[in-house]
Amino acid sequence: MRDVAIIGVGIKKCGELWEQSMRDIFVDSALGAIQDAGVDHIDSMYIGSMSPGLFVGQEHIGPMMADYMGQCPIPATRVESACASGGTAVRAGLMDVASGMNDIVLVGGVEKMNDVSGDEATYALATAADQEWESFCGVTFPGLYAMMAVAHMAKFGTTSEQLAAVAVKNHANGSLNPVAQFPMKITVETVLNSVMVADPLHILDCSPITDGAAAAILCPAEMAKELGSKRPIKIIGSGQASDTIAYHSRPDLTTIASSAKAAAQAYKMSGKSPTDIQVCEVHDCFTIAEIMVSEALGFFDKGKGGAAVEAGETAIGGRFPINTSGGLKSKGHPVGATGVAQVVEIVEQLRGEGGKRQVEGARVGMTHNMGGTGASSVVHIMEGM
Amino acid sequence: MRDVAIIGVGIKKCGELWEQSMRDIFVDSALGAIQDAGVDHIDSMYIGSMSPGLFVGQEHIGPMMADYMGQCPIPATRVESACASGGTAVRAGLMDVASGMNDIVLVGGVEKMNDVSGDEATYALATAADQEWESFCGVTFPGLYAMMAVAHMAKFGTTSEQLAAVAVKNHANGSLNPVAQFPMKITVETVLNSVMVADPLHILDCSPITDGAAAAILCPAEMAKELGSKRPIKIIGSGQASDTIAYHSRPDLTTIASSAKAAAQAYKMSGKSPTDIQVCEVHDCFTIAEIMVSEALGFFDKGKGGAAVEAGETAIGGRFPINTSGGLKSKGHPVGATGVAQVVEIVEQLRGEGGKRQVEGARVGMTHNMGGTGASSVVHIMEGM
Repeated sequence: MRDVAIIGVGIKKCGELWEQSMRDIFVDSALGAIQDAGVDHIDSMYIGSMSPGLFVGQEHIGPMMADYMGQCPIPATRVESACASGGTAVRAGLMDVASGMNDIVLVGGVEKMNDVSGDEATYALATAADQEWESFCGVTFPGLYAMMAVAHMAKFGTTSEQLAAVAVKNHANGSLNPVAQFPMKITVETVLNSVMVADPLHILDCSPITDGAAAAILCPAEMAKELGSKRPIKIIGSGQASDTIAYHSRPDLTTIASSAKAAAQAYKMSGKSPTDIQVCEVHDCFTIAEIMVSEALGFFDKGKGGAAVEAGETAIGGRFPINTSGGLKSKGHPVGATGVAQVVEIVEQLRGEGGKRQVEGARVGMTHNMGGTGASSVVHIMEGM
Repeated sequence: MRDVAIIGVGIKKCGELWEQSMRDIFVDSALGAIQDAGVDHIDSMYIGSMSPGLFVGQEHIGPMMADYMGQCPIPATRVESACASGGTAVRAGLMDVASGMNDIVLVGGVEKMNDVSGDEATYALATAADQEWESFCGVTFPGLYAMMAVAHMAKFGTTSEQLAAVAVKNHANGSLNPVAQFPMKITVETVLNSVMVADPLHILDCSPITDGAAAAILCPAEMAKELGSKRPIKIIGSGQASDTIAYHSRPDLTTIASSAKAAAQAYKMSGKSPTDIQVCEVHDCFTIAEIMVSEALGFFDKGKGGAAVEAGETAIGGRFPINTSGGLKSKGHPVGATGVAQVVEIVEQLRGEGGKRQVEGARVGMTHNMGGTGASSVVHIMEGM
């Protein structure tokens, strides 16, 4: 298995991109990554996208994007695991390079979510849950994550203020990120006074509907040196795990088991442990998700995630800086692109290019990308070469 | 790069499966493959599916199928490249095993197409074309392939009778296949007298709407021996290529360039040439496709594919037996599953388990799976160990 490095990344401002089509926003980010890597071609590509069929009526986006990037006839494949699609694209690209099949591989993600109505977007997102036993009964994702929050509050005493603290921190980070969709700072009071979506989750506990794309260029670590790449970042650990598609099928409603298992694989492969992780992007689709995931990744004991964020331990400068980009909450959540956007942030941090968001001296970072209520999780650990 | 073998396959009867859900039909085939391989677990899985979001309102089918197979927490990812999704699943699994990331990997495909109306199915399938410049203007796949047929007829003198000969041969083969959706024999006259869908394509020039699934188990070739696998089949060549998403963007309307390029990669990797291929499954979504692809794969000179099928060269017993399974035309075309169903047929042929469809002495076989009008093609070459 060949060692694999990331030698280029690209991302554009997330938001409601009315003047750009899905192909425009992907090509923008992908060409940005190619330019950043300084390569003159790519050998293959993988695109994470959750539901371009439901969002814009277009499947088969692998070759379409290769076409619009001027990269035909390279192999181009879409991968999907709901909101973890971007993470699976990174992992597919990793295996492509590691296997020796291809050398310079683009991994990207895209979602154009605003071209449909809010109702249609909610329907499209609900196809990540169990269609027969959850969505059909009327429960959509805010409701599912509200159930998680209720369970976590009941078992561990997690509070609405602690949930709000996640949003406050992430907006503070996002205010320092030029690509963030919602870069305004907010307060705990703003969150608690915002409209209730699904008790106990207010609208400011929820990540937004976002148009966006992100991309990264992978190559063999040996080749990164030959290419004279500026600050290549090595992928030293990769993990992916599945869990029941329905939230109600899980034995413990306060644990995201797939995240813990994916992280365990990535820790084992890299030889790292939670205390080695200096900066981490986690999948905060709802504030409760960040708290539960920070426990699943081993940063905090079970039930202590809420207190940790409230105490500032996950802020920039804290013990475990989480979502320095602003996370899904503030940077935005173009679902299929999110897992790759997380990699962009960690690469920038490990290169020392985080600007005002920089975690000083960060050498080892992690991304955690999740689909549905945790039916899929993908974790990567990266290190500066 | 580790050598990879196929040690088990599974497929059930294709058709209008009103009494089974998408999850039922996939799990049936997947458990069949696991049983056929004689393994007690799998390490990861890839599922090809074109548009479960539009066909049954369910994305995120990787972990869902792992769940319903009782295989959580293994990594489970859906891959998509329209009607070539199954082929990309095989290729993703190949890289997973080749890279050393996992050992026993299930690759499968599924599509449940009959739960929506015919209009909705046509819309869903048209998302494989260029949504902005083809589908939006009202052209769907019968129209696009009719244009190919017209171009091929004008340039090379290909006839409606030659197109019909593809359907006649494939139905003859399908009549010998217990899993075929339409196993009845037909004649050239039946085809020419059937209703015109898009001139010159009659309804019997078109593959059907199909519910179906297929699966195969991959592992390192070395391990196949250790497992005492019965007749393992090695994947000796793999190729994938892209082309413009829109048919009108191509410089030559009578060539499927992505298929020629994917085949060239697979020939190079395997050290084989067209004359080494003793049995081949090709993507006959329309009769003209089989003719054009048989030229792209190098079996016949440009423009000679029609005459070849008419002369019986692609029949069982001919020089280049094509679609011994009955092909998409007679066996059925559950779009995301098709690429894996092709692998099932070739494995059965190379094992000598083809029954009345057996190509005597077949040791080397090929699969060709295509998306859209050839915006993506995936080719695999297999050989008995």
